[in-house]
Amino acid sequence: MQIVLDKNGAVPLYRQLVRQLRDQITEGRLAAHYRLPSERNLAAQLGINRTTVLQAYRQLRDEGFIASHVGKGTFVQDRAQAAPPITHNPPWPLLFSDYSNRFTYHDLASANQAQNLTGVIDFATGSPNPQAIPDELLRQVSLKAFASHDFDGQPESPIEGFPELRELLARHMRRDRAIRCEPGNIMVLSGSEQGIDLCVRAFINPGDCILVEQYTFFPALQAFRSAGARVVAVPMDGNGMRTDLLDAYCARFHPKLIYTIPTFHNPTGTTMPADRRCTLLETAMRNQCLILEDDPYGELAYATGGMGNRDIANPVVTPLKGMENSGYVVYLSTFSKTVAPGLRTGWLIADTHVVSRLAALRTLVDQHTSSSSQRICIQLLRANLVSEHVKRLRDDNAKKLEAFCTAMARYAKNRLLWSRPAGGYYVWASLPPGMHGETVLNAARRRGVSFMPGCIFDADGDDDSHVRLNFIRPELAEIDPGVRRLVASLEDVQESGCSDRT
Amino acid sequence: MQIVLDKNGAVPLYRQLVRQLRDQITEGRLAAHYRLPSERNLAAQLGINRTTVLQAYRQLRDEGFIASHVGKGTFVQDRAQAAPPITHNPPWPLLFSDYSNRFTYHDLASANQAQNLTGVIDFATGSPNPQAIPDELLRQVSLKAFASHDFDGQPESPIEGFPELRELLARHMRRDRAIRCEPGNIMVLSGSEQGIDLCVRAFINPGDCILVEQYTFFPALQAFRSAGARVVAVPMDGNGMRTDLLDAYCARFHPKLIYTIPTFHNPTGTTMPADRRCTLLETAMRNQCLILEDDPYGELAYATGGMGNRDIANPVVTPLKGMENSGYVVYLSTFSKTVAPGLRTGWLIADTHVVSRLAALRTLVDQHTSSSSQRICIQLLRANLVSEHVKRLRDDNAKKLEAFCTAMARYAKNRLLWSRPAGGYYVWASLPPGMHGETVLNAARRRGVSFMPGCIFDADGDDDSHVRLNFIRPELAEIDPGVRRLVASLEDVQESGCSDRT
Repeated sequence: MQIVLDKNGAVPLYRQLVRQLRDQITEGRLAAHYRLPSERNLAAQLGINRTTVLQAYRQLRDEGFIASHVGKGTFVQDRAQAAPPITHNPPWPLLFSDYSNRFTYHDLASANQAQNLTGVIDFATGSPNPQAIPDELLRQVSLKAFASHDFDGQPESPIEGFPELRELLARHMRRDRAIRCEPGNIMVLSGSEQGIDLCVRAFINPGDCILVEQYTFFPALQAFRSAGARVVAVPMDGNGMRTDLLDAYCARFHPKLIYTIPTFHNPTGTTMPADRRCTLLETAMRNQCLILEDDPYGELAYATGGMGNRDIANPVVTPLKGMENSGYVVYLSTFSKTVAPGLRTGWLIADTHVVSRLAALRTLVDQHTSSSSQRICIQLLRANLVSEHVKRLRDDNAKKLEAFCTAMARYAKNRLLWSRPAGGYYVWASLPPGMHGETVLNAARRRGVSFMPGCIFDADGDDDSHVRLNFIRPELAEIDPGVRRLVASLEDVQESGCSDRT
Repeated sequence: MQIVLDKNGAVPLYRQLVRQLRDQITEGRLAAHYRLPSERNLAAQLGINRTTVLQAYRQLRDEGFIASHVGKGTFVQDRAQAAPPITHNPPWPLLFSDYSNRFTYHDLASANQAQNLTGVIDFATGSPNPQAIPDELLRQVSLKAFASHDFDGQPESPIEGFPELRELLARHMRRDRAIRCEPGNIMVLSGSEQGIDLCVRAFINPGDCILVEQYTFFPALQAFRSAGARVVAVPMDGNGMRTDLLDAYCARFHPKLIYTIPTFHNPTGTTMPADRRCTLLETAMRNQCLILEDDPYGELAYATGGMGNRDIANPVVTPLKGMENSGYVVYLSTFSKTVAPGLRTGWLIADTHVVSRLAALRTLVDQHTSSSSQRICIQLLRANLVSEHVKRLRDDNAKKLEAFCTAMARYAKNRLLWSRPAGGYYVWASLPPGMHGETVLNAARRRGVSFMPGCIFDADGDDDSHVRLNFIRPELAEIDPGVRRLVASLEDVQESGCSDRT
């Protein structure tokens, strides 16, 4: 029996003693019926107070590990030995669910880290440039949110969000996205992805069909598939989803839901024009099929010509939700792409039937969005700070897009096929014939630049001729060298003969 | 064509005009080929600037609702008419999933509100008394969290949580719950319920069996069933789960997971003694079955006799996770029951295999817990404020338990069967023979007191002879009148002959 106590440690001596004795008993190092030293002896031996040993023995007795018999002493119990050996670990592959074994998780940030690649110019990650997050504004606003002396702790919020935040979001959406909505149509979410998860729970039975754009947000694909949905890809062109094909797809597959990112699409950067939006709405309604409109980028329009009215976020593109009020469209947006992803605050706009159903289901998930995040968002919206920040962000992003297009025109003209998006984060580029996204990515990482290979976004999973480039993620000054490195990596692949099909 | 503009409203005039014209077109009130007034005429008619009308017409043209023909004028497009009428609403019952149609949501707070019952003494709600939330402490700590001038906005957190918070939680758990763990074993959650949801995704295939205590936390039951699991109830007695039956249950049902609340159980208030914990661990390991240990109340021990050491949170009860380090136990806890539910911050302790698998799956859910909530928790733990607050809370709650027991002894002696819990929130009481929980609840609400009927917690769903009473939810002064009202409502039921079986 060996006991080593840390007399200066944070853990009380009595606890250390219990822990070590218990370990030795459960691991079989102290056998059943072993007689422990008396309290007095052990205390003397360890140079500690006798009451400490008393306390430890009492707890081990309560736990069933030892027993004391008056006049005989204290013994290790038989029972305690029966505890299984701690070296026996669970057979993880047998325990994980089929779904989680199939789950693929594209964490390029970690991949880059794992490869020890610092100094990589990042066109891959789908979140804002860290420099674009308004630190000082958030600091001021957070202080304001918590400074008031009638501050009421961190109260529970209604599941749908604090009433003031729902009101402010409804106003923001009416003004900046032309969506008719009342506070009762708004549900505050812990990020807009949560809205996808909740809609899957609320609407999808295993076997139900969901139509998606050929290329789409990959966590949505994973969420749909995890629910056992049949995911069917609708072809796209430079104007987004081919809505002329929708009728045929509805007739063939009887979809329950159409998931779409109509504005500044992820990953292709396309925007669905108004006539296609009409067709989409009309087809969905005729087929009693819901539309889940994902709009994280909608406020980030960079087209400047024409209207010249700086007060209007998106002079041209009205969301699908802004073109109907029947309830067929469930709309999702977020502050993650425009303010700060760490807020974990998004929202959903839907018919009140949907809001109340999702609220009930959310009792299984996270109850409500963090009260402190909600308070911060209330402060931001109250003072119109979101719209002001988004205006600045649009200007900065438009400069990055300009720099990106200039660099692409200069270096990539004969190598990549791409088009300039009207807003959002992404340029989608076709690789030269026979070149594969993953091959180019490996070469690109060696050159110090990263992007997302197209196959990740392909609903059919077999595309390998595209890449997604987030032009707003790097610093402005990194964009030119980033594109140069990307084109150099194409040359590397070509020269090494790694282009697989030519 | 009728246009009414709100010239003092927040919505730009141009937007109001677009909206009203679009509505009239989609609703068919402006027919296809209808000729709109010229820009000049409409501006004059409405008393607004001509460029406002110009802007509105241009947007409607871009959206495909109208078309202009030089020299002829501006006309409503045929295409626009095809948009479906807005009165056509989705057939919700056909669209909601089977799961969500089956989902029952027990929202007693709303039920009380709906019945316009103010002044109801609340033994029902499973969260802290609002007065017990340390407002001023949270205010100070929040200010501290956001005051620093090197504050870095609301950065994205790693999925598992900020490293400092994981480190602080590991220390807290080692010290106050005797759980051996390193920061790598900790995952910060948006409430501990999220841990249940993630474990279901990670481990449960449809048809897998999950063993639960006969009475248990009802959102866990719903989460398990929604995943298509077979939920099997293990009988309980005054010491919690009957672990002597576990071998037979494992042989018969081959469970993948055992879900348990071993300490200050919800709803029964029981605590599983150490020997049962050994049996449970041993049986689970022998059967390669995971244990999901839910421990939201573990720090709230009110037993004061014996140890007399106020530095030790729970002198007696060691969590299951503290008795093994093989990885079979996944442990969940939360600040919701001890600090403030609005923080939406809980945590999980598990083998690193589990942490990394759950982190991957969490990319479909909420990415990570709100950065501001995490910062606040870091401040709380850094200065040891959680343990200090929990000590005060234990004292307050112990007084409430004392008052509750006194009142029960005084008023309910011959009517309810119950036992005093050693900690946590709940007293579980048996109703007089033949009386039903729901019947008593209706009578109780009329008397101005509420509780949770037992059937909600019953894994088999057919119990109606118990009630759960959260003795810490009301104010101290409300406890005596609350119990009195409860007993009066039992008399009401008896007198009205509503007791269904006698």
